[in-house]
Amino acid sequence: MPAPALRLHLVTLGVDDVARAVGFYESLGMERCMKGSEGVAFFDAGGAVISLYGRDALAKDSDAGELPRGSGSAALAFNVTSESAVDETLDAAAKAGGEILKAPYRVFWGGYIGYFADPDGHVWEVAHNADFKFDERGLLVLAE
Amino acid sequence: MPAPALRLHLVTLGVDDVARAVGFYESLGMERCMKGSEGVAFFDAGGAVISLYGRDALAKDSDAGELPRGSGSAALAFNVTSESAVDETLDAAAKAGGEILKAPYRVFWGGYIGYFADPDGHVWEVAHNADFKFDERGLLVLAE
Repeated sequence: MPAPALRLHLVTLGVDDVARAVGFYESLGMERCMKGSEGVAFFDAGGAVISLYGRDALAKDSDAGELPRGSGSAALAFNVTSESAVDETLDAAAKAGGEILKAPYRVFWGGYIGYFADPDGHVWEVAHNADFKFDERGLLVLAE
Repeated sequence: MPAPALRLHLVTLGVDDVARAVGFYESLGMERCMKGSEGVAFFDAGGAVISLYGRDALAKDSDAGELPRGSGSAALAFNVTSESAVDETLDAAAKAGGEILKAPYRVFWGGYIGYFADPDGHVWEVAHNADFKFDERGLLVLAE
């Protein structure tokens, strides 16, 4: 029997203080959903959901052992529709307590990207790529 | 000016060997897209894209310093439509070289979930939650 097709539904970010982390992501323009949840916060990030959850609770739930701070060798990314939106997003992240890892720069393939870490060390890339198309939900449309 | 709404478009997993990592995710039923890309592989994971990329290259691009193995305190999750699909997915992951971190168990809120790590240590949760609804694209529909 074939395995079910894998869909990315949620990315859970282990954080020190859920309320503080909520404030950070709200500063980036995200809106919390399912507000009745306790000890965890969910944000609709387009196709997938970002959840903010205690790092210790995540370690306990997953039996993954002690979890290092931040997103390890995983980086989250979102794409915006202009180069100025890349700059604005990094400014908003810095003002809300994030750390700018790499100021926006032009990549060899033509994109314009920058990186920040949220207050718990999770790495985000913010990118503008003129070749990328978005569908009506704001999600990327990929070629074959 | 308000910050642009944050959408999760891509999750980049830093890996030791992109070809090996591609084999693992193909074993879970994912199909590679944009196959012409060199040194990076993209998979359409529903609303977002998973990309597999060299860990060293990711560290260099992001100026995030040396990146620890795995996904740190971030966990990726996908939801399936039955408890048996949770079991099947974990079996497929184990056969393809993943590590079962936590065998499926019933959570207090009624769900049935298990955890595995991919061969590069990235943590995935596989869940069935009878309360979750999916839209026509297979994405979760969240309440307010």
